[in-house]
Amino acid sequence: MNYTKEDLLTCHEKIKPYIHRTPVLTSQALNEMSGAEIFFKCENFQRMGAFKMRGAAHAILNLSNEQKRNGVVTHSSGNFAQAVSLSAKMQGIKAYIVMPSNAPQVKKDAVRGYGGIITECEPNIDVRQATTDKISEETGASKLHPSNQVDVILGQGTAAMELLEDHPDLNVIMTPIGGGGLVAGTALAAHFFGKNCKTIGGEPFEADDAYRSLLSGKIESNETANTVADGLRTVLGNHNFPIIQQHVDEIIRVKEDEIIAAMRLIWERMKIIIEPSCAVPFAALLREKEKFAGQKIGIVLSGGNVDLGNLPF
Amino acid sequence: MNYTKEDLLTCHEKIKPYIHRTPVLTSQALNEMSGAEIFFKCENFQRMGAFKMRGAAHAILNLSNEQKRNGVVTHSSGNFAQAVSLSAKMQGIKAYIVMPSNAPQVKKDAVRGYGGIITECEPNIDVRQATTDKISEETGASKLHPSNQVDVILGQGTAAMELLEDHPDLNVIMTPIGGGGLVAGTALAAHFFGKNCKTIGGEPFEADDAYRSLLSGKIESNETANTVADGLRTVLGNHNFPIIQQHVDEIIRVKEDEIIAAMRLIWERMKIIIEPSCAVPFAALLREKEKFAGQKIGIVLSGGNVDLGNLPF
Repeated sequence: MNYTKEDLLTCHEKIKPYIHRTPVLTSQALNEMSGAEIFFKCENFQRMGAFKMRGAAHAILNLSNEQKRNGVVTHSSGNFAQAVSLSAKMQGIKAYIVMPSNAPQVKKDAVRGYGGIITECEPNIDVRQATTDKISEETGASKLHPSNQVDVILGQGTAAMELLEDHPDLNVIMTPIGGGGLVAGTALAAHFFGKNCKTIGGEPFEADDAYRSLLSGKIESNETANTVADGLRTVLGNHNFPIIQQHVDEIIRVKEDEIIAAMRLIWERMKIIIEPSCAVPFAALLREKEKFAGQKIGIVLSGGNVDLGNLPF
Repeated sequence: MNYTKEDLLTCHEKIKPYIHRTPVLTSQALNEMSGAEIFFKCENFQRMGAFKMRGAAHAILNLSNEQKRNGVVTHSSGNFAQAVSLSAKMQGIKAYIVMPSNAPQVKKDAVRGYGGIITECEPNIDVRQATTDKISEETGASKLHPSNQVDVILGQGTAAMELLEDHPDLNVIMTPIGGGGLVAGTALAAHFFGKNCKTIGGEPFEADDAYRSLLSGKIESNETANTVADGLRTVLGNHNFPIIQQHVDEIIRVKEDEIIAAMRLIWERMKIIIEPSCAVPFAALLREKEKFAGQKIGIVLSGGNVDLGNLPF
């Protein structure tokens, strides 16, 4: 598919009633520490606490009326489950959410709180996919993918669009890379709305499939994914990978202790709550700060849904 | 002293270069939960992480040039120490900070980071006061009080002024009550700039000296102060008590578990970091929510300096 500037503009107009225009925060302390001028786009303040609301709202809005009557289905134990549930509720349709039986109670409660209809299944990816397919066949619900679907990718790109509206002369925008939807959407937004604005992704060494995929030219998987950044354990897909190949300038990998230290710095200095995955691009900036010195850097703070009873520090 | 609207306006103009105009945040979830429409004035995002910056900056600005040459001195182990250190640094003068020897290393480091010159002393209030007096005599440094000083009270009131500029039709503004500087300044601001806007304080049952002082008509002390709200263990003073008597409409006391629950709610739902003392007015609102139903309530979120290694949940 060829993406255009108009695709992003249309998407943004459509989803505006369903999302917050999140604030952009700065921190003198973190600027001094990094040597760059950083603009944090606070998607941790987004509805349901993460950027995923943008893509979910857009994907549901673009369903036909007949499709909407049958609802939507997805499998997720994380932010996308909440995003689909809340978006569906706001648009008055049903959301079936397939969750692994060992998902934390707090996440099940959050999905139920947004009106999602949960089906529990064995915690392995094949069963989750099969359960999703079965529900879709039985109910006619449209399947939604958290990162590898055109409407989702465009939706996620609107965070960077807003950031560039507020700060048009950014040199770089950085995001974490999990399934690839956010970084792909961001790269499109930087391409169409930035002034030579680069897109750089941050990824844990422990789940560096995207880094390796760019090197090899094909989608790589992770043997293991032992990272505190639990939102980044997934791999790229056929819709977002070509965009990443074309428009993402670089992927910087970071260690686990760097992720935790970056998360703690943002908590302590900015007094805002971000989840571990969200700290990865800032960790990447600190790791290679010579590269960013004196530049204007946008960072998409992807989300703030963290279990306060289980912090990494 | 008689305070005027102009005192507050002049103070605000003076301190503007030294403070952030902090944002006002809202939360649909917390509005639904409480039944009120709440506007949170985020002084946790203030420089050094608390409203204390306002009063400290103002008190130092109003010193004569000769006084400024000799610097300032205060005793504090908390936010006021950091506020005085940073304000003094920004205005190019010396800040002597008397801290109890058992103060947490992280607080000593923060004061030093802002350029404060620390003198450690035995951890009891008489020795702290005597050490402060001695430094003042030896150096000529002007003594600053965290809450019971006219310039400090006016400075603290500017947070509510800004809140009322943004939202002129608030029915109530709520703050925590510790030493009384914030609630007194807020009450003056509500009196001069609100439209019949009440001021209501929140206070822990475990340190309810202000509640009892209003009842008895004289300044009461706390026998013990076993509260998680460590910023609220202090008592009122002769400068702020008359203002509180005249302009504070009510003080609502809250239990320790209510403070912790309110703190956690704000962390989880708003994704912002506040310290325990800061959660007290929201806890008070929830405790008596029938009283506030349908009203527009401003809450001054006083600060966000919390030890992440020692959370109450």
